[in-house]
Amino acid sequence: MNEHIKQHFSKEKIHHLEQLSSLLRIASISALSAHKEDMTNAANWMADALTEACLEHVALMPTKGNPVVYADYLHAPEKPTILVYGHYDVQPVDPLELWDNDPFEPTICDGKIYARGASDDKGQVFMHIKAIEALLKTTKQLPVNVKFCIEGEEEIGSPHLPEFVDKQKDLLAADILLISDTTMLGPDAPAICYGLRGLCALQIDVQAAKSDLHSGLYGGAVPNALHALVELLASLHTADGAVAVKSFYDDVIPLTSNEREALAVLPHNDAKYQKQLELPALFGESGYSTVERYMARPTLELNGVYGGFQGEGTKTVIPARAHAKITCRLVNNQDPIHILDLIEEHVRMHTPVGVTTKVTRYDTGRPFVTRFDSPAIQSAATAYEVGFGVKPFYMRMGGSIPIVEVFDRILHIPVVLMGFGLPDENFHAPNEHFSLENFDKGLRTLVYYYEHLETV
Amino acid sequence: MNEHIKQHFSKEKIHHLEQLSSLLRIASISALSAHKEDMTNAANWMADALTEACLEHVALMPTKGNPVVYADYLHAPEKPTILVYGHYDVQPVDPLELWDNDPFEPTICDGKIYARGASDDKGQVFMHIKAIEALLKTTKQLPVNVKFCIEGEEEIGSPHLPEFVDKQKDLLAADILLISDTTMLGPDAPAICYGLRGLCALQIDVQAAKSDLHSGLYGGAVPNALHALVELLASLHTADGAVAVKSFYDDVIPLTSNEREALAVLPHNDAKYQKQLELPALFGESGYSTVERYMARPTLELNGVYGGFQGEGTKTVIPARAHAKITCRLVNNQDPIHILDLIEEHVRMHTPVGVTTKVTRYDTGRPFVTRFDSPAIQSAATAYEVGFGVKPFYMRMGGSIPIVEVFDRILHIPVVLMGFGLPDENFHAPNEHFSLENFDKGLRTLVYYYEHLETV
Repeated sequence: MNEHIKQHFSKEKIHHLEQLSSLLRIASISALSAHKEDMTNAANWMADALTEACLEHVALMPTKGNPVVYADYLHAPEKPTILVYGHYDVQPVDPLELWDNDPFEPTICDGKIYARGASDDKGQVFMHIKAIEALLKTTKQLPVNVKFCIEGEEEIGSPHLPEFVDKQKDLLAADILLISDTTMLGPDAPAICYGLRGLCALQIDVQAAKSDLHSGLYGGAVPNALHALVELLASLHTADGAVAVKSFYDDVIPLTSNEREALAVLPHNDAKYQKQLELPALFGESGYSTVERYMARPTLELNGVYGGFQGEGTKTVIPARAHAKITCRLVNNQDPIHILDLIEEHVRMHTPVGVTTKVTRYDTGRPFVTRFDSPAIQSAATAYEVGFGVKPFYMRMGGSIPIVEVFDRILHIPVVLMGFGLPDENFHAPNEHFSLENFDKGLRTLVYYYEHLETV
Repeated sequence: MNEHIKQHFSKEKIHHLEQLSSLLRIASISALSAHKEDMTNAANWMADALTEACLEHVALMPTKGNPVVYADYLHAPEKPTILVYGHYDVQPVDPLELWDNDPFEPTICDGKIYARGASDDKGQVFMHIKAIEALLKTTKQLPVNVKFCIEGEEEIGSPHLPEFVDKQKDLLAADILLISDTTMLGPDAPAICYGLRGLCALQIDVQAAKSDLHSGLYGGAVPNALHALVELLASLHTADGAVAVKSFYDDVIPLTSNEREALAVLPHNDAKYQKQLELPALFGESGYSTVERYMARPTLELNGVYGGFQGEGTKTVIPARAHAKITCRLVNNQDPIHILDLIEEHVRMHTPVGVTTKVTRYDTGRPFVTRFDSPAIQSAATAYEVGFGVKPFYMRMGGSIPIVEVFDRILHIPVVLMGFGLPDENFHAPNEHFSLENFDKGLRTLVYYYEHLETV
């Protein structure tokens, strides 16, 4: 990285934090319709930042949901074009009482910036904009071509992006898709992710009597929606931690011994992991290591269960309704729609006497695995080495970015997942934060990547 | 009932409805601390109504919780003294969206008054005050002595009343305890309740990791508080509907064949009951009839279960915490404290790997059974026959009024449970209501009871 860029970053540091804070103040929660205006504000914020960074053709492009923010800078003929994908929406913040600070009032403490979206994904998108801005403002040129595609529905499963990408495939055409929405393995362990889990989501609603009933007058003689729900939900797993839905694992490609060896060398320590999470014990599917469990094995997870009284004290009620929100993480070659079919059949077969069940399907995303010996990915490895001073690991990641599979399928270009988050930064949880050290190192890494990709 | 009283009730009818409505407008939810002021307002309302009814020594008597409203009229020496117990507090109203009207804006429709507390217990307490008022205002005297003891914590298990009754046992001394907080068997089927189930309540809190985790980054490798909770809760019942807690039934006095025969003649029809509740099937402990199940068998009921995301759409989170609220209905000779010990031991033994559980105990109440051949109860039977034109049934009731057992134990007097509610009036549920026809018939019944108890 040349001196001008170094000086630029030093000079801009406080300004960067102020700008990032103004973005993090926008409560762009895509899952909650009450935040519709915040979605527009966040999209406009992104457009303004891209304009300020000297990018061109900045536009809010409508979808049937929240708009996609597009921008490009295409003045390096014969050079590769990088499509940068990110998202400006964030996860909901409840339980709010577990946040040490307002999730939308960014707070800096111990070298970390705390706010919803700090690491997932506003902070990381912001780095890309600032890396490009630094190159354009100090060198007046860009050694590659770039396009930005920043969406506002990633946290609800990108329901409208597949249609958008398909319709705009000429506009989005590129040589490489670059995404920073994943994590490294630790502060000194950058990692390139070559696989992601897929996702499917559903809700189960149980209905017993027409209304809640008094537990004294009716208790013992009528079905209780919560009894039925917990019985049904308990049937979804076996005692040894596997998913008990029939045929759930049928399409899973077993891990090869080579891959198991590769995952085994990743820096991970069960005892440390358990201690860090303050868990009395680890628990997961038997026959697999912790790393295998969260990177390369499918899951069925209860994300929310609710029914009946939740207030202070007690209420002697027999709930008429009970609900469960479920997501599965899937691996190749599980098909999310087929998995939803299997779960729906399981629910049908295991519905207890005296209640009815309804299954509502939400978003789905296919799992994804790419080759990690492509030039685009090897180039990213070199950039990480320059930025962080160590060679990166190659890993799979347990999370899902369904859009990765969509881009892969529609645009047919290599996908480079270059994450700067850390595993303990509370993605989707209270007190989400982002390391300011990784912000600095990440900027260096990205500038190097943009500068040197021309050699690919 | 003499003509003056009849005319009085006719003349006062609209005024009664206005007064009852003003009481029902007070949101005196004892379970929620935000309603503290409403509790005071409801207590004051009761005191004013007792004063207006010409009762004496009207007082709000402090407890460590909500005050007890006391009043008396003791001008019939040599005549028996009736202690009337009721409560001015009500259940919470959630889920609010299932109410057709504001629960605290009384609405009259099809001969029923709809509001939280309409039948449980404000409407029924109101009848007692109006019956006494009618006698005092038309005849200027009362053929018996009465004392009122109206508390404000019945819906949270009367935590402070035992101490109050014990301290005030001289003030409360009486020959009969009269309570209208139960239901009849149907519109033309008045019933005298000679037994009540006991109660114990607890909350289970499950804690997994120190905070919620991303289901992609961690899913499969860490315990999920909801998985653990549903597994634990499912273990509390057997597949045939019995409670699976070890030794739970050990102290239950089995139903005698005589008692089973008596319960079998009560007007009940399984098909009608199921249809009325809009249930796909009835479900309960095998080996017992529906009536036995809800009147005379113990239960363990999930009143509330919650953890994780409950908003719109999905959230890919592994919840760190999950909660269950549980109450048991108990029968003689189960001891509520001992039952809580057994459940706590069950939770300890069945806590899944990777989580910790905490049990919080709430209120308890012992079960109660009385002799139904006492003069006080036979007198009540006659009053019902006059008021409703049919002989009442003798029944046990599945609900719990823990204070009944307390009065029984401390004051050693017969307890007469003379209910005017109907089983489908949604006690503790949305759209609670009270039959205005039963209000009228109940007033006649009570006036007759107060007038003729002197013959006992």
